[in-house]
Amino acid sequence: MSETTIGEAGEFGLIARITEALPRCAACLVGPGDDTAVVATASGSVLATIDVLVEGIHFRRDWSSATDVGRKAAAASLADVAAMGGVATSLLVGFAAPGDLPVTWALECTAGLTAEAARVGACVVGGDVVASPVITLSVTALGDLQGRSPVLRSGARAGDVLAVAGRLGWSAAGLAVLSGGFRSPSALVEAHRIPDPPYSAGPMAADAGATAMIDVSDGLIADARHLAEASGVAVVIDTSDWVSPEPIAVAASAFGVDPREWMLTGGEDHALLATFPAGAAIPAAFRIIGSVLASQEPGVIVDGLRMEDTGGHVHFNGARRE
Amino acid sequence: MSETTIGEAGEFGLIARITEALPRCAACLVGPGDDTAVVATASGSVLATIDVLVEGIHFRRDWSSATDVGRKAAAASLADVAAMGGVATSLLVGFAAPGDLPVTWALECTAGLTAEAARVGACVVGGDVVASPVITLSVTALGDLQGRSPVLRSGARAGDVLAVAGRLGWSAAGLAVLSGGFRSPSALVEAHRIPDPPYSAGPMAADAGATAMIDVSDGLIADARHLAEASGVAVVIDTSDWVSPEPIAVAASAFGVDPREWMLTGGEDHALLATFPAGAAIPAAFRIIGSVLASQEPGVIVDGLRMEDTGGHVHFNGARRE
Repeated sequence: MSETTIGEAGEFGLIARITEALPRCAACLVGPGDDTAVVATASGSVLATIDVLVEGIHFRRDWSSATDVGRKAAAASLADVAAMGGVATSLLVGFAAPGDLPVTWALECTAGLTAEAARVGACVVGGDVVASPVITLSVTALGDLQGRSPVLRSGARAGDVLAVAGRLGWSAAGLAVLSGGFRSPSALVEAHRIPDPPYSAGPMAADAGATAMIDVSDGLIADARHLAEASGVAVVIDTSDWVSPEPIAVAASAFGVDPREWMLTGGEDHALLATFPAGAAIPAAFRIIGSVLASQEPGVIVDGLRMEDTGGHVHFNGARRE
Repeated sequence: MSETTIGEAGEFGLIARITEALPRCAACLVGPGDDTAVVATASGSVLATIDVLVEGIHFRRDWSSATDVGRKAAAASLADVAAMGGVATSLLVGFAAPGDLPVTWALECTAGLTAEAARVGACVVGGDVVASPVITLSVTALGDLQGRSPVLRSGARAGDVLAVAGRLGWSAAGLAVLSGGFRSPSALVEAHRIPDPPYSAGPMAADAGATAMIDVSDGLIADARHLAEASGVAVVIDTSDWVSPEPIAVAASAFGVDPREWMLTGGEDHALLATFPAGAAIPAAFRIIGSVLASQEPGVIVDGLRMEDTGGHVHFNGARRE
């Protein structure tokens, strides 16, 4: 096929190019090519979430490859499913882009979506392709609880232990590195381009009796606050014994900042923050970082100080994610 | 609350404003406010589809109210569920918009989404709100087959009867009216702003033994071609006894065009095109418009002429929907 832009390929041509490369997974009963997908849901319910990524707000094409963007978009939704204690089964992708976008960009982005979905055994089961002045990826993930009860944000109780699985601050540090015009430490840049959510830790936490869980997409303090407010408790974080991962320590030293700043407020790593009853056998993927207290005023306390703002990404009001 | 733009309200403020007004429906086990929704799927499978609407491509704010846009966006996805023979249970909405958008626009758009979903007993169970230079609505619909087998595009067989439920050409005629600077016939303008898909006809067709079905979103010829190609047959349409609905006839006369042009190529009314075995008791919502023939070369034949192009909306390559 000789078309090089998606405008030349046209809607149906592009859909054909995209779908011919898609692998199928077990949950996909009817895949792309019909009015809807049909996805198996043996448990009698389905987890469903949507995340939208917009060029210039959530990614830049000069910093991230098409594959990176696809993986990042998929990860945002897949991590939400993990944060409920579920396993993702499938993705639906809304792909909006200008007509002069190269077909290869769309195909590589799809390959990224597919590769990230494959990490949890899921596949792309459907989508929509439309014209837009701005590249916009809308990714819906469906997931299965496999018989578990969903782990909500609202279940944390006084006396619970607070624990986190996955990286904190790596993506934010990587963004700082890129924004400063640097390309190293490469581990941070890579973490910004492609998050590495601890997907399997979600169901493990549910099985271990987690009382509440949330995906850290806006920043540890911001998402701890969501959990605290939903549960009506105070979430207490103690950073006194934190050891910064080596690339974070290196970058923080170079920028002259406190590495805990990134670790407390950086989003997009999609770590999983969970609470467990005291004495629970906490899965090895989690490390304890605090506790839950009863409180008349739900919120987040870090090293004894009550945090008054979200400390995370705030959209719309002038702040750009990158 | 005093914020008048979504930038002033902020991401979480806007989400709070949107979700506090959302009704709940039976299928929604866990609604907005957690990492994912949990939706009941008693049948062991879930229908899932996504459609994306972009300002300037799919709608214009000077022609459509926020409520209209919400209803139109919901209808596109809900009609896909009907076209599989299912009943929609829930919507997930990705809402991307510039910070200077009035909060009222977002709330009215949500009210439109909610109102359209309520027509089939569904509700909004989750979503995402992000900043974007262009208003972009990504609507995922989930649906239930209620024990039916899905009616695919690929099941049409030679000898089947071709039938359609719902309007043809009304939205396209309404767009022509608006594009010409007119506001009447108002029934057409209204049809362009708010489609009226025959949702209940989808499950009825499935129950009546429909062999194939598709939602007419791109135009009758274009979508008949999709069905013909998926089924490996020729779809034959006979317009000789068509009577144009009165508003279509009036507008066609004023514009000096053949009304069948709109009815054959106009999209976005979300009629349902289905094939039934000869002799099947076809539901009253459907009218017979043709038949299915065996063919070495799948395609669409209208009044004896083989249609060589899609005759419907083609995206990207310069053509705008409005």
